[in-house]
Amino acid sequence: MSIEHTEKILLAHGGGGRLTTSLIENAILPKFQNPELAQLADSADIKLDASEVLFTTDSFVVKPLFFNGGDIGKLAICGTVNDLAVAGAKPVALSLSLIIEEGFEFDTLEKILASASQTARQADVPIVTGDTKVVEKGAADGIFINTAGIGTKYKQTNLSFDRILPGDRIIINGNIGDHGMTIMSQREGIKFKSRLKSDCAPLADLTRTILETGADVKFMRDPTRGGVAATTNEVAQSAGCNIELIETALPIDSSVRAAADMLGFDLLNIANEGKVVVIASEASADKVVNAMQQHPLGKDAAIIGSIADRDDDPIVELLTTIGGRRIVQMPYGRELPRIC
Amino acid sequence: MSIEHTEKILLAHGGGGRLTTSLIENAILPKFQNPELAQLADSADIKLDASEVLFTTDSFVVKPLFFNGGDIGKLAICGTVNDLAVAGAKPVALSLSLIIEEGFEFDTLEKILASASQTARQADVPIVTGDTKVVEKGAADGIFINTAGIGTKYKQTNLSFDRILPGDRIIINGNIGDHGMTIMSQREGIKFKSRLKSDCAPLADLTRTILETGADVKFMRDPTRGGVAATTNEVAQSAGCNIELIETALPIDSSVRAAADMLGFDLLNIANEGKVVVIASEASADKVVNAMQQHPLGKDAAIIGSIADRDDDPIVELLTTIGGRRIVQMPYGRELPRIC
Repeated sequence: MSIEHTEKILLAHGGGGRLTTSLIENAILPKFQNPELAQLADSADIKLDASEVLFTTDSFVVKPLFFNGGDIGKLAICGTVNDLAVAGAKPVALSLSLIIEEGFEFDTLEKILASASQTARQADVPIVTGDTKVVEKGAADGIFINTAGIGTKYKQTNLSFDRILPGDRIIINGNIGDHGMTIMSQREGIKFKSRLKSDCAPLADLTRTILETGADVKFMRDPTRGGVAATTNEVAQSAGCNIELIETALPIDSSVRAAADMLGFDLLNIANEGKVVVIASEASADKVVNAMQQHPLGKDAAIIGSIADRDDDPIVELLTTIGGRRIVQMPYGRELPRIC
Repeated sequence: MSIEHTEKILLAHGGGGRLTTSLIENAILPKFQNPELAQLADSADIKLDASEVLFTTDSFVVKPLFFNGGDIGKLAICGTVNDLAVAGAKPVALSLSLIIEEGFEFDTLEKILASASQTARQADVPIVTGDTKVVEKGAADGIFINTAGIGTKYKQTNLSFDRILPGDRIIINGNIGDHGMTIMSQREGIKFKSRLKSDCAPLADLTRTILETGADVKFMRDPTRGGVAATTNEVAQSAGCNIELIETALPIDSSVRAAADMLGFDLLNIANEGKVVVIASEASADKVVNAMQQHPLGKDAAIIGSIADRDDDPIVELLTTIGGRRIVQMPYGRELPRIC
């Protein structure tokens, strides 16, 4: 079958015929070489070391497609790797599914796929199956990517809302709001944008490191859309406990703070793509922070709050820098469309 | 948390905050009730009866969203169930990920989700995890759906291109081209469209029935995009054997044939969404056809061709009704955009 050269994606690249084969064989397979994907079967065959898997999916519609610190390809891998990682799993295999707008530049697609491939290698997880659809010009905005992933649980982890108790500590592995503020600043064309950089990173190695300490880790979640505010509100609701966050303890980059102040955003609501919120027993909290700080993705790790008393109608409160208290609400949702 | 009523999807429904929670709790969860999904964790926890899974994904961009015999919700479930089924697996769990255009009608979304839910129940597979993104008006065409799926292999199945030999029979479970011609006719507004109906159906029960006969089944694939022409060309290439298809043996509905003649399509290139091409040994072929014919999804099953001699540059040939031969090429791909 001959190689078909075009500079832009055509509708026929998604038609399931020769051009689809050409796209897959020339643009996709060379970037994601592994025996499962190479078979191009309808399903990939995955050997496991367990009879239980964790399974997750996310679609990515981020705008712009390229941002300081990443792009939609890197993000699509990190998002799904991190969903598995925070569930206490080792990512074992990913799928990658593309919806591409007719006329999309081939070069841009190649860059996105190269970035996805590099991130998957960094996270040590193969992309084993995929799909490509092309829609006519105007029917999508460039490219949308879906990834799904399966993973196997690390032994002796016991993560559950049910185990969260008053006194437990809330820990994060570094600065909050970097991803969301980078995207927003770039979208708004703000001058200081060059100092902002998304935290987009695969967290599976960090979470493995944390779990291997043997610390009493009760819950982990990546504070993406809705930020730390959404994650802590979900924990408060599900655990039936109030939560106290300490404003002075929140790790925040000064440029990110400036951008948030200028644009009028509360960084607690802003998406992160390389952060994990860990809830650990009081006795284990320092062990978790120390383990994080020795990892490249956890240098600025800190205890940012604690689980307070049980409550039928629990809330999250922020102990502010000036000694006050304010309620941290579940974000309504309109703040940041297409942040991931 | 109060229920938020809107008639149309807002950007905020995808923001990860209160409206996202409301959408999930009120529109999605009630339709897909199962213990894994109800936990709304980042990853769903799946117990397996094996230490090996099959893993697949597909995105669906079909236009129109509703067609005679199905809709994008039903199609998204069938597509992924069928990819697992033809790989010889029992589907165990599905993911469902939505990309919705701002302003999309809530009622339409509810219909699509109800259809997906009903199809998943029919296929006896739970939807255990999902994701919802909303993009601004004009950035997508209504709704796109991605599903991924995992399955476990039926015991004692041995499906592989390597086992295909000259003399093996090519079998299909019924009429070809129904899905593609239904979509095209509806899109073109053709009068006889009411007689056309997509074959969209989950095939896992049929493939299980076939495998349980103990017949020597060597390969199965669902001839979706690119149709029987693409599937048989892939088989010819991968097995290194020529293929002969017999035109008079192809099961074709008379209305579908009329539509294809009028629109100038070759039905061998047209997508099916409820068909499986099975390659079985000559001795086992009748057993497979009989098993299919006793199943509701295989009443019109037939042997449509056979594997011919080995060849370094194999082709697929059609023995035509009038006694001639023509080469069935791998479709180029431009025929039918957004057919699935």
